[in-house]
Parts: sequence; C-alpha cells; structure tokens
Amino acid sequence: MSKGLFLSFEGIDGSGKSTQARLLAERLTADGRSPLLTREPGGSAGAEEIRALVLQGDPDRWSPETELLLFTAARRDHLERTIRPALADQRVVICDRFADSTRMYQGRQGLRQTVDTLHDLIIGREPDLTLLIDMDPKAALARAKSRATMEERFEDFGLELQQQMRQDFLALSEEFSERIHVIDGNRQPEIVAQDVYAIVASALMDTASG
Amino acid sequence: MSKGLFLSFEGIDGSGKSTQARLLAERLTADGRSPLLTREPGGSAGAEEIRALVLQGDPDRWSPETELLLFTAARRDHLERTIRPALADQRVVICDRFADSTRMYQGRQGLRQTVDTLHDLIIGREPDLTLLIDMDPKAALARAKSRATMEERFEDFGLELQQQMRQDFLALSEEFSERIHVIDGNRQPEIVAQDVYAIVASALMDTASG
Ligand SMILES: Nc1ncnc2c1ncn2[C@@H]1O[C@H](COP(=O)(O)OP(=O)(O)OP(=O)(O)O)[C@@H](O)[C@H]1O
Ligand SMILES: Nc1ncnc2c1ncn2[C@@H]1O[C@H](COP(=O)(O)OP(=O)(O)OP(=O)(O)O)[C@@H](O)[C@H]1O
Ligand SMILES: [Mg+2]
Ligand SMILES: [Mg+2]
Repeated sequence: MSKGLFLSFEGIDGSGKSTQARLLAERLTADGRSPLLTREPGGSAGAEEIRALVLQGDPDRWSPETELLLFTAARRDHLERTIRPALADQRVVICDRFADSTRMYQGRQGLRQTVDTLHDLIIGREPDLTLLIDMDPKAALARAKSRATMEERFEDFGLELQQQMRQDFLALSEEFSERIHVIDGNRQPEIVAQDVYAIVASALMDTASG
Repeated sequence: MSKGLFLSFEGIDGSGKSTQARLLAERLTADGRSPLLTREPGGSAGAEEIRALVLQGDPDRWSPETELLLFTAARRDHLERTIRPALADQRVVICDRFADSTRMYQGRQGLRQTVDTLHDLIIGREPDLTLLIDMDPKAALARAKSRATMEERFEDFGLELQQQMRQDFLALSEEFSERIHVIDGNRQPEIVAQDVYAIVASALMDTASG
C-alpha cells in the first residue's frame, strides 16, 4: 500500500513547469492513479482569493514583507485545505511551484532569512521531491513570448534577471540536494517528461516499499 | 520640539475604545495638534482590503494560523503606510486596537508563541503607550446590544468569553506594565476621557523634554 507523495515543479518563467506538471498528471492517471494537480500561489479557495489580492493592482502596492506574509498565508491555506487531505488519501500531489519559489523571489529582495523563519514557523513541510526544470533563459523567453499575455511581464523582468534566477535556482538545488532534482528542460516536452517520470516512478517504488 | 507619539486603545468589545480614541483625538485637536486617528485591522488601503478578506464570509473559512498571517500582513502595511509616516511627521498616532488584540484573540487559540515570534520578525514595534479600557463585561454587553449590528456577534461570543477576555487583558497589562495603563471604563465617557488625557498629556511632556 503506497503512501501519498508530495511533488513540486520549480524553474524560471517559461521553463515548462506547468507543461510538465500536466504531462506527469496525465501519465500517472494512465497508470491508474488519481494524482492531484495544483499550483501556487493559489490551490485552495482561500489561497486563490489571496493570490488575486496580491497580484491585482499596482505592482508595488505591497512591500516585500507584506507580500511575503500574504503568500505564506496562501500557502498555509493551500497546505491545510488541499495538499494534506490529498496526501492523507494517499494521492500523489503535483504542485506547480511551492516554497522554493518564495525562497527565490522574496530571497532576492533580501528576505531569505525571514522566509526561512516564517517557513519553519508556519509551513514546516517541504515536498518529498522537487523537479527543477533548468533551461537557457533566452530560449525560455522566446517560448514565453509566444504567449501574448506574458509579453508584458517579461519586458518588466528582463533577460538578465532570468539569468540570475537560473543561477539562484541551481544554487538552491545544491542547498537541498537530497530533495531537488535538476532536469534539462531544453528538449522536447515529451523527452523532458520521460526524465521526470523516471524519477517519480522510482520515488513511488521507494514509498511503496518504505 | 516634540517627537511623534504612538498610542493604542485596547479592551473587550464594547468597552469604549472607539469612543475614547475619538474623544482623545478631539481634545488633542483642540490643543492645536493634528493627531492621526486610525484602527486595526485596517488603517491603510491595503490593510482595509485584507481586513475585508478576513472578516467576510464563513467565520471558520480561515484557520487560526492563516488568519494570524493575514492580520500580521495588514498590520505591516498599516505600520509602513500610515503609522510610521505620521510618526515621522511628529504627529500623535491614536490606534484603535493594535498588536495586543492579536496577542489576546490569537493567543487564546494556542498561538501566543507564534504571535510573538511573528511580531518580532515582521512588526518589531510596540505603541509608546497603551490605554486598556477595563470594565465589567455585563455592562459592556448591555452597551453593545444597544447597537443593532453588534447583537449577532455578541450572541456568538457570549458573556463568559468576555469575562475571560477581561482577565486575559488584565494579565497582559501586568506582562507589559511599563507600557499598558489600565483605565476604569465603568464611568461616563467624559470622565474616562479625562483620565486618558491626563496620561497622554504627561507622556507628551516626557516626549517633548526627552
Ligand atoms: N520542452 C518544451 N519545448 C518547447 N516549448 C515548450 C516546452 N515546454 C513548454 N513549452 C511551451 O513554452 C511555454 C511555457 O511553458 P509553461 O507554461 O509550461 O512554462 P512555465 O514554467 O509554467 O511558465 P510560467 O513560469 O510562466 O508559469 C508554453 O507555451 C509551452 O507550451
Ligand atoms: N463610558 C461609557 N458609558 C456608556 N456608554 C458608553 C461609554 N463608552 C462608550 N459607550 C457606548 O457603548 C457602545 C460601545 O462603545 P465603543 O464603540 O466605543 O466600544 P468599543 O470598545 O470600540 O467596541 P468594539 O470592540 O465593538 O469596537 C457605544 O454605543 C458607545 O456609544
Ligand atoms: Mg506555469
Ligand atoms: Mg470600536
């Protein structure tokens, strides 16, 4: 009898997190499982409302600290109302971004220490396994630009920031080397998905026998 | 040249916090000052939006921890956008409830330790002076019932809870005995206001000479 498994996807904008999360959910469904596909910020009714509050309006209407608290409130709700119940039902939970995204984005604003203290205080849980989709930011940018709604966001952030984010994500994968697996995302989605599935299948075997 | 002074009013529901905060603001205005009268949760544009999100809907749609994070996010915004700028302008800030209310309400839900850690991490500031309006909960209940919109809320909480809250507030005034002044609220509003004003005037003299 297998226990639940908590997975997250991380990576820079346009790296293919949502695509891979969906492909993995489809594959596990084909295997006869009923995975739960969810995302952050959001993933529960309350968390989606907080998400809307944070993301709507002027980008600097919240300070970094206030934004961190709001995202952590959303994560707590998501964990309580969506993730933990699904794990208790022994399901595989596939989460598109989780706490590592906060470590990256709010960490870049000089809040890494605060992020960690808050995480220990309020969240206290990491994914069992994190798939970091690593790729060339230029190619990710080109992909994302093909999605009209993203263009503006990308102009704001810029390529240089994406290059720094990539390095920061790789540094994070060394900090949490047991948990974070780096996957080369510069390939066709189906090929990337095969690597992802191999890692997840192995973790599911460990869980079943553990 | 006087510095800013940060004051808060605390006490059980219906004890007269809002009444006294208003009377004090009027008196200081008559003295030629320009006090800032504000309240929690709320007190800034962002904090008022968070307040609406927390207070609307089903009362248990947020867990105690999520609610604590949301209130702390609102407080951070209020402090940054409203309180600190007013203090920097050397104004007297009169706040209807502040962090002590969180220590009381969320503290009662077993979160006092978490409240304190979060306060130190994110807020890190107490009022210079807190006026605790202490009074008989039965009389406070009778006053509050005269306000139609409060009736439902009071039926939920009940007199016994208000009695416990009163004791907890008094215990808090011993914990922070330097800062929290207990005022007998069982008297006419104008008489209570005289006591409040005497304490505040004395603090303003200290501030001016300090
Ligand atoms: N391996 C791939 N090769 C080529 N295109 C891809 C690949 N993976 C995803 N795409 C396409 O690139 C775009 C971005 O992919 P996706 O939305 O999955 O990225 P994401 O990491 O979730 O981005 P965001 O951070 O913005 O949510 C989409 O249009 C998607 O169809
Ligand atoms: N000293 C007093 N004597 C008699 N009535 C009073 C006194 N102070 C306030 N009231 C009345 O009691 C009611 C509650 O007062 P108020 O709204 O100031 O209390 P509050 O502590 O702010 O309550 P809440 O916690 O609900 O905000 C109001 O109708 C007010 O006019
Ligand atoms: Mg995505
Ligand atoms: Mg009031």
